Amino acid sequence: MKNIYIIGVGLIGGSFALDVKKTIPSSVIYGIDTNETHLDEAIELGIIDHKAEIKDLNNADLVWIAIPVDATIELLPKILDEVSDKTVVVDAGSIKEDICLAVKEHPKRRNFLAAHPIAGTEFSGPKAAINELYKNKTNIICEVEETAFKLQEKALKLFSDIGMRIRYMNPKAHDKHIAYVSHLSHISSFMLGKTVIEKEKNERDIFDMAGSGFESTVRLAKSSPAMWTPIFKQNKSNVIETLEEYIQNLKHFKSLMENDDFEAVFDEMETTNHIKDILNGIQ
Amino acid sequence: MKNIYIIGVGLIGGSFALDVKKTIPSSVIYGIDTNETHLDEAIELGIIDHKAEIKDLNNADLVWIAIPVDATIELLPKILDEVSDKTVVVDAGSIKEDICLAVKEHPKRRNFLAAHPIAGTEFSGPKAAINELYKNKTNIICEVEETAFKLQEKALKLFSDIGMRIRYMNPKAHDKHIAYVSHLSHISSFMLGKTVIEKEKNERDIFDMAGSGFESTVRLAKSSPAMWTPIFKQNKSNVIETLEEYIQNLKHFKSLMENDDFEAVFDEMETTNHIKDILNGIQ
Repeated sequence: MKNIYIIGVGLIGGSFALDVKKTIPSSVIYGIDTNETHLDEAIELGIIDHKAEIKDLNNADLVWIAIPVDATIELLPKILDEVSDKTVVVDAGSIKEDICLAVKEHPKRRNFLAAHPIAGTEFSGPKAAINELYKNKTNIICEVEETAFKLQEKALKLFSDIGMRIRYMNPKAHDKHIAYVSHLSHISSFMLGKTVIEKEKNERDIFDMAGSGFESTVRLAKSSPAMWTPIFKQNKSNVIETLEEYIQNLKHFKSLMENDDFEAVFDEMETTNHIKDILNGIQ
Repeated sequence: MKNIYIIGVGLIGGSFALDVKKTIPSSVIYGIDTNETHLDEAIELGIIDHKAEIKDLNNADLVWIAIPVDATIELLPKILDEVSDKTVVVDAGSIKEDICLAVKEHPKRRNFLAAHPIAGTEFSGPKAAINELYKNKTNIICEVEETAFKLQEKALKLFSDIGMRIRYMNPKAHDKHIAYVSHLSHISSFMLGKTVIEKEKNERDIFDMAGSGFESTVRLAKSSPAMWTPIFKQNKSNVIETLEEYIQNLKHFKSLMENDDFEAVFDEMETTNHIKDILNGIQ
């Protein structure tokens, strides 16, 4: 593994570049981005060694795609067109079904590995890139059997050296489950932020009263709309399903309060406290 | 300030005791709690010096009440009955209107200071007590004019020595605003936890896919139902109002997705990104 190409030098791509460089000091990191300022920043920050373009990809050992998922769907076939037999192309997108579908019949499908590293922060751009973002994080690999064995082996070894745990899943199940544990959290957080901001318009004092609890719950509302809009679009039916269940649960809680059934309100919360054990389990 | 009585030796009471002891090393901390195990733990952890009872309160310089808000409403008049002229009684409850109302006509109303320190974690009990929980936190004081000047002065100096910022607010405004920035966050988090747990019943893999974003958003769902049920009960109408607005915003977001209006979905998120500046403001 020598020539690593990062397509999209933001939080996800930039952090991956930092980890690769640390794991394989002899690697050369190339950055590709439609945003020239980001490329310059990435060079300045030592995230990439050189700027590059799609046409240079035949030189790549590994390509890491970390751009909005709609852009991945469009660009992935073109990337595969360019790469050589020895190149493994990995995408890090938060939806997997449509991405796998986009290259299902591509003659170089076996050069592609569909991945979703469960890692990130609410920030974006090269300046948001951090060391060890991927350490001890889960990387979900989809349709592993569709990737050439030698190429998956090469990529999986690198992920493992960086400190990632690997899980295998089919794209359909991935998209359904991730809607619950990631996409829905973002909407709940964005809408919480919206609800409070709307109120704040006339009552500016309100944020003096916000504590760490509010901050934690609303943290994801800082996330990038450019990244999240395509995710919601691409995973529309699953996200709408989770959102519908979430709204039903909120309505039910509200009706318990309206009916002064605070015993049931207590029970709702006590049952959900079970999340403690679950979260301990994921750490 | 010598004799400090903590009623409720959990997270809020215990952490206050630790800060007082550090700020006034000569103080003697007494603990009162209906839970004997918690009292024993509090002594073992060095949070309190002695166990005490309500009838001992005439000895107190300051009483800090940190029990569920419905228990405060019931107990506060009895506490005031016991205290001497020199005692300031402070409650730390998350609702203020009903608490102030409970002692409005009490002959010792001027011994009471209604407070709400915006501090806490999702944990509870004496073991959850931590040093410097209150440092740089806002303490909202309600109806300050109803408290004897010398007593408020004494309490406010202690809060300031501990590192708290003071804000003044009327109880009605407090309860309305806190519903947005605290109570609603808890419900949004509990219901998010519930929605995901319900799904998880049949699909145990799901939590392997949860990352730090989910964890942050669902953190408050670990909170104590014994503390939060009375808060929702006591602040029912404000909480229902915020919940209704939150549900409307979620439904609107869902309908934008259903109508494939992803430009509007983008705008919703971009507008709400403004929360970044607001959160920077509160730090």
